[in-house]
Amino acid sequence: MRPSPEERERLAAVAGRIISWIEELMRAAGIGGEAVLVGSAARGTWLSGDHDLDVFIGVPEGSSLLPALEVARLVAPEFEERYAEHAYVHALFEGFEVDIVPCYLVEDASEIISAVDRTPFHSRYVSARIRGLEDEVLLLKQFMKGVGVYGSELRIGGFSGYLAELLVIRYGSFVGVLEGSSLWRPGEAIDLEDHSSRSHEDPLVVVDPVDPGRNVAAALTLDRMFAFAAASRLFLREPSLEFFFPPDLPPLPDEELREALAERRSTLILLEFAAPDLVEDVVFPQLRKAEQSVRALLERGGFSLLRSDADWHRAVPVRDDGVGATGPSDDVGVLRILLELEVALLPRVERRVGPPAWEAEHAKRFVASHPAPLSGPYIEGGRVVVEVARKFLRAEDILRSQVAGLSLGRHLGPSLRRGYKIYVGQEILEVRDPEFRIFIARYFSAREKVG
Amino acid sequence: MRPSPEERERLAAVAGRIISWIEELMRAAGIGGEAVLVGSAARGTWLSGDHDLDVFIGVPEGSSLLPALEVARLVAPEFEERYAEHAYVHALFEGFEVDIVPCYLVEDASEIISAVDRTPFHSRYVSARIRGLEDEVLLLKQFMKGVGVYGSELRIGGFSGYLAELLVIRYGSFVGVLEGSSLWRPGEAIDLEDHSSRSHEDPLVVVDPVDPGRNVAAALTLDRMFAFAAASRLFLREPSLEFFFPPDLPPLPDEELREALAERRSTLILLEFAAPDLVEDVVFPQLRKAEQSVRALLERGGFSLLRSDADWHRAVPVRDDGVGATGPSDDVGVLRILLELEVALLPRVERRVGPPAWEAEHAKRFVASHPAPLSGPYIEGGRVVVEVARKFLRAEDILRSQVAGLSLGRHLGPSLRRGYKIYVGQEILEVRDPEFRIFIARYFSAREKVG
Repeated sequence: MRPSPEERERLAAVAGRIISWIEELMRAAGIGGEAVLVGSAARGTWLSGDHDLDVFIGVPEGSSLLPALEVARLVAPEFEERYAEHAYVHALFEGFEVDIVPCYLVEDASEIISAVDRTPFHSRYVSARIRGLEDEVLLLKQFMKGVGVYGSELRIGGFSGYLAELLVIRYGSFVGVLEGSSLWRPGEAIDLEDHSSRSHEDPLVVVDPVDPGRNVAAALTLDRMFAFAAASRLFLREPSLEFFFPPDLPPLPDEELREALAERRSTLILLEFAAPDLVEDVVFPQLRKAEQSVRALLERGGFSLLRSDADWHRAVPVRDDGVGATGPSDDVGVLRILLELEVALLPRVERRVGPPAWEAEHAKRFVASHPAPLSGPYIEGGRVVVEVARKFLRAEDILRSQVAGLSLGRHLGPSLRRGYKIYVGQEILEVRDPEFRIFIARYFSAREKVG
Repeated sequence: MRPSPEERERLAAVAGRIISWIEELMRAAGIGGEAVLVGSAARGTWLSGDHDLDVFIGVPEGSSLLPALEVARLVAPEFEERYAEHAYVHALFEGFEVDIVPCYLVEDASEIISAVDRTPFHSRYVSARIRGLEDEVLLLKQFMKGVGVYGSELRIGGFSGYLAELLVIRYGSFVGVLEGSSLWRPGEAIDLEDHSSRSHEDPLVVVDPVDPGRNVAAALTLDRMFAFAAASRLFLREPSLEFFFPPDLPPLPDEELREALAERRSTLILLEFAAPDLVEDVVFPQLRKAEQSVRALLERGGFSLLRSDADWHRAVPVRDDGVGATGPSDDVGVLRILLELEVALLPRVERRVGPPAWEAEHAKRFVASHPAPLSGPYIEGGRVVVEVARKFLRAEDILRSQVAGLSLGRHLGPSLRRGYKIYVGQEILEVRDPEFRIFIARYFSAREKVG
C-alpha cells in the first residue's frame, strides 16, 4: 500500500519531467498561466500501484481554455480526449496515466467557473497541512478501499481522496479518524475552518475549507458512511490486516452457484440489457433508478423482494452454448439488475382493500370497479374489501409484460426497449462471464465489517 | 316475516295463559311482585317463526330471587335451567319456548342489581312509543337478519331487537332508519332523551333512554355497523326482496370445494379442536382471540394471510373413511379456525432488519445474535441487515410446533392442548359435516350488500 522509495522517486522524476515539458509547450504556444501537479501524487498520499498523475494547466480568468487543451494534446503521442464538465486529455507518459486538465486560475475557490478550477485550491490547502501525516492518509485510504467505501464516483458513493485527507487533518491520525467516525450519527458536521455555512441535508457534511458553500462529502451515501463507521469500530476492537486487504472473491463456479441457490431457495431474476455508450457517472444513477422502478413494479404486483442489486459489466458475456459475444451488446457491455424474490408464484386470489365503508361515493366506485370478484365485497376493519383474480401470477410475467413501459431514466429506457433478456432461477447459470460471477459471489456473501 | 293474524292471536292467548298461571303460582307461594311479558312478543315486534316468549318475574328489591326461581321451575314439566348473570328457566309451554327470568323490581333502571332487572324498563319505554310502528320494526329486524347483522350475541356482534326498536323510534320508520344509517360515521351518537351522558368509545353510541350510562349498541362491531349502513344505502338505490331473504347457501359439495381451491390457488389451513362445554358468549370471544393469536404466529413466521375465520360447529364430524363421530369431541362440537395464506412455503433465506448502524451497542448485539448468517451483516437504509436460515419453511410446521404454546384464552388453551387436528389444502375435503361445508361456502362467497 505504501509506495516504495524507488516508486516515490520514479513518480517524482516523471512528474517533474511532465511539468517541465508542459511549461515548455505553453511558452512555445504563448500561453500565460502555470502547470501544476495536483492530487495525491503531488502530496505523497497516493497508494502504491495507482500510477495516476493529475496535471492542471491553469490559464487566467477571461481567456480561452482551448489553447491549453491544444497543449495538452501535444504532451504524449498516446492520448484520448475525455469529457467531464470540460474536455481534458488522458495521456500515457512514461508508463504513467496522466490526466491533463485545462482550468482557470481564479482568486478564490468560491469564484470558480468549472469544478476543476477548485482542484488547485484543494491541492494547496492540503499540501500546507498534510506534512508528516502522509502515512496516516495512506493507511486511511487503504482501509477505506479494503472495506469498500473508497471512491466518490456514483457507482460507489464513498469517500474521495480529498475527503480522506481532510478527515486526517481534522482527527490528526488514521486511528483518530477511526475513533472519530465510530461516534458519527447521520447529519454529522465537520467544519475545519469554522465557516458555519449553510446547512446540508447530506448524511455527512464536511464543509469545503476553500469553498464553504460546498459539502466535500456530498457524494457519500448513508450506507457507505456507516459501513465505514462500523468497520472503524470493529477494527479498533479487533484489528486485522483483512480490513485493508480483504480476500479477493473469485468468479463463482457453476457448482457453488447451484449450491447458493439451493441454500437460499428464493427466486432470483436477472434482467439484462445493453449499456448505453456513456460514462459511468451518467449511467449509474439511471441504473439505480431503473432498479428501484423494477422493484416497485414487482411490489405493486404483490411480490416481496428480499434484496436487489445492479451492475455494469463490460465483459462480453459467454453463454452456455459456448458461443461468445451473444449479449445484447458487444461494445459497451451490459447492465444487469438482479432481483431476489421470496416466491416466484403468487395465488390467483388477490385481496384489494378499498376505502372506508362510510365514504359512500368512494365505496360505490370501488365496488363498481371490481365487477366480478372471487369473494366480496365485504367490510373488514371498516374498509370495503374485495378479492379478485390476480392478473400476473408469476413475477417474470409482470416483467416481460411491463418492464419496457417503465420510466427507466433518459438513456436506459431506450436501451432496454431495443432488447433485453430475463433469466429466472437456475437459468442464471447460463450467464458465465467472470464479471457477473464475481458480482453474484459478492451478492451472496454481502458481508460488511459490522459487529 | 310479519306474523299472520292467527299466529298473533295464538301468541297472545298463550302469553295470557302463562302470565295467569305464573301469577297463580306466585300467590300460592306467597311471593310479592309481578309477572310481566317483555321483549318483542310483548310489543308486537316479533318476527314470524320466532316462537319465543320472555316472562320476567319481578320481586321487590332486598328479597331473594330463589322463591321466584322455584316458581319458574313449576311452570312447565319440560324445562332446563340456564345461566346468564343469574339462573333462569327455559321451558316448553304449549309449543312455545319461554324464558322465565327472576329479576328485581327497582325504582330506576340506573339502580339495577342485575342486567335482567333493566329489561322491564326497556319493555315499558318501547311499549309506550312503538304503537303504530310495529310493522316498521318487523321490516327492520328482517332486513337486519337478511344482511347478517341481527343479534347482539358476541358471535354476531350485530343489532339487538331493543336497538332496532330504538332506531325506529328515533328515525320514525323503516326507511327512515335506512336513510339515517346511510349517513353514519364511526362514533355516531343517538340520544333519544337528550341525556348527553358520558362519552363511549364504541363505533355507534345509542344512549339507553332508561339508563343513560349504558350504550345500547355496545356489542355492535364497526364492521357489522357499516355492513348495515352500506346495505341500507344499496337498498334505497336498488330495493329487492333479497335483502330480507337472501338465498340459503347449501353445504359445499366436494366438486365445488375443489373448484374453489383451484380458482383461488391460495393455501388453506384448518385448525380443529374440541369446544369446551360453555355458552357461546363465553366461547366466542376466546375463539376470536385464538384466531388472532394463530394469525400473529404465522405472520411472525413470515407468512401473509389473505383472510381467516372461525366458527363453532355442533355437528359430529363425518370423515372420509365413512366412520362418523371421529372428531376431537362428540359432545359439544368442534371449534374451527380457517386460515388462508398467500403461500404454503417460504424460501430458506430470511431477511432480518436490525438497529441503525450508529447505535453501536445494539448493532453489536444484533450481529452477535446471528453468528452464522447466509449473507451479511451489511448496512441498508442505515440499518444493519442479516440474512439467516429460516427455521420453519412451511406454515403448517409452525402451527404443529407452536400452536399449543400460544395464549388462546382461559378455556380454549387447555382444550386445544388436549388434542387438535390440522388440515392443509386439499385435505380440507376430508371435513364433511354440513355445518363446516356451509361455513366454507359462506367463506368463499363472503358477499355483503355493499355498492
